[in-house]
Amino acid sequence: MAASEIDFGLLAGDGIATRSAKAGETIFKEGDEAQQLFVIKSGEVRIQAGNRTLAELSTNHIFGEMALIDDAPRSATAIAKTDVELVPISEKQFLFLVSQTPFFALKVMRVLARRLRATNKTF
Amino acid sequence: MAASEIDFGLLAGDGIATRSAKAGETIFKEGDEAQQLFVIKSGEVRIQAGNRTLAELSTNHIFGEMALIDDAPRSATAIAKTDVELVPISEKQFLFLVSQTPFFALKVMRVLARRLRATNKTF
Repeated sequence: MAASEIDFGLLAGDGIATRSAKAGETIFKEGDEAQQLFVIKSGEVRIQAGNRTLAELSTNHIFGEMALIDDAPRSATAIAKTDVELVPISEKQFLFLVSQTPFFALKVMRVLARRLRATNKTF
Repeated sequence: MAASEIDFGLLAGDGIATRSAKAGETIFKEGDEAQQLFVIKSGEVRIQAGNRTLAELSTNHIFGEMALIDDAPRSATAIAKTDVELVPISEKQFLFLVSQTPFFALKVMRVLARRLRATNKTF
């Protein structure tokens, strides 16, 4: 999936507050309430539903955007595959980015569209 | 799916140019080049990939947005389930709406997120 993912590196610049997770650590669980999405500043993250891996994502990719978009609980579990450094984006920041930077909105749409295509293909 | 879909009725007001299709008519086919998305002004549309129905959509819902978002061929086939009246939204209009009306961008994201959740659930 990495080749088709969208680069959100601009949101993960130096000096921005980050959150770390150790390899194997759960970042969030399916069903959790959602307060933020994450940009991967370094490392790799596995997204899974039950035992099924939905995606493996690396630097400059985002995850956790779905629950923020539709105000529903987390649809999947995110686990640090390696030690990772993440930039959390709050719902407020997300709405600001969408409203002020249309290009950001389009990039998020592209992520969703590609995941939907990828999911449909695995049927 | 209808209950969880987002209302795009504002884009389908009176006086806006429409396209009609008869029940059973193919609106676009998987693999086609994409120039527009559609708002359903009246009637019902079935979205299918091969013989598998992905969604059945009715008045004020959109379809065909994926190919516009990621500049790829149509990922599914759209067939008029009943006689339908559609409002076509060109790529240029779509980009204008995204850039000028953040709420539109969020609504499109919500459509994608809900379809992704629905698809993941059918595994």
